[in-house]
Amino acid sequence: MTMVPAQPLDAEGFAPFGDIIDARGPTPQSINAGHAQRYHDLARLDHDPSGHLAISVFVAEAMDFPVAVTMLERHPRGPQCFVPICGTPTLIVVAGDRSGVPGSPRVFLAPAGTGVSYRRGTWHGVLTPIGAPGHAVRYAVIDWTGPDMNLETYPLPDRLVVQAPQSSH
Amino acid sequence: MTMVPAQPLDAEGFAPFGDIIDARGPTPQSINAGHAQRYHDLARLDHDPSGHLAISVFVAEAMDFPVAVTMLERHPRGPQCFVPICGTPTLIVVAGDRSGVPGSPRVFLAPAGTGVSYRRGTWHGVLTPIGAPGHAVRYAVIDWTGPDMNLETYPLPDRLVVQAPQSSH
Repeated sequence: MTMVPAQPLDAEGFAPFGDIIDARGPTPQSINAGHAQRYHDLARLDHDPSGHLAISVFVAEAMDFPVAVTMLERHPRGPQCFVPICGTPTLIVVAGDRSGVPGSPRVFLAPAGTGVSYRRGTWHGVLTPIGAPGHAVRYAVIDWTGPDMNLETYPLPDRLVVQAPQSSH
Repeated sequence: MTMVPAQPLDAEGFAPFGDIIDARGPTPQSINAGHAQRYHDLARLDHDPSGHLAISVFVAEAMDFPVAVTMLERHPRGPQCFVPICGTPTLIVVAGDRSGVPGSPRVFLAPAGTGVSYRRGTWHGVLTPIGAPGHAVRYAVIDWTGPDMNLETYPLPDRLVVQAPQSSH
């Protein structure tokens, strides 16, 4: 068993794994006669041409720290992007690939209102909102759908236990 | 000037114009060992193959009723899907097409936490969160990006003023 604290999500640390969906970064375009700002094309959404991107809604049970992570998964045919609809932080566990299995996991905490997009083929943990245990939390999910298999799972040989970020109580 | 009350958003009334992004409808798939439910592939996202779907974030100023609507727009090359990140209702103004210009507008109010996807080419109003005037409200937006023009606008000859739903105070 390995204990690790979640790190605050930052674009540089997360860059090898995917993209952050929020209202930051380069200067946005002013649209709608100045009444709105557009932060444009934030995620790389390349995918297998045999299927298409779909929008779904996931309703997931919240968990509280410490969170045990026992498996990672990946989607070989396209990205998977999570946009939080409820105001809940999200636990982000990702890993690079080492010869077809996950390397050392990195653990982030995305704040409420911030989404992430896992790049095609990136190892990641299952959707884990952080909040009152069992509370139902909604996300809009953009991912690939098509005729072929799009899920690989890998049980972690060393159980990972994620603690609250060290800056919090 | 025409005064109309917003109607509660319902899937049947909205069906000619697009799709509702929420956790309703057919039985979801149970995923993540039963800890999450997936409401799958909720919106028709067909688009021109010369470009691709992109995820952006819009930050829009909220308005309060009555809301004056002076123009509609449409996107000929793909859908436009709005997922609310903040907990704010959204004004939805849509219209069918009559020989290249909008027909009579329909006016809905999407509750907080509910997204909509405007089908490719559907006439609709600009993004209008309903809340404290000027308050900045975020949405994740999935729409087409590519080399060609993807916006047509139409100034309404008869200014439309939308009132609060009649069931509310």
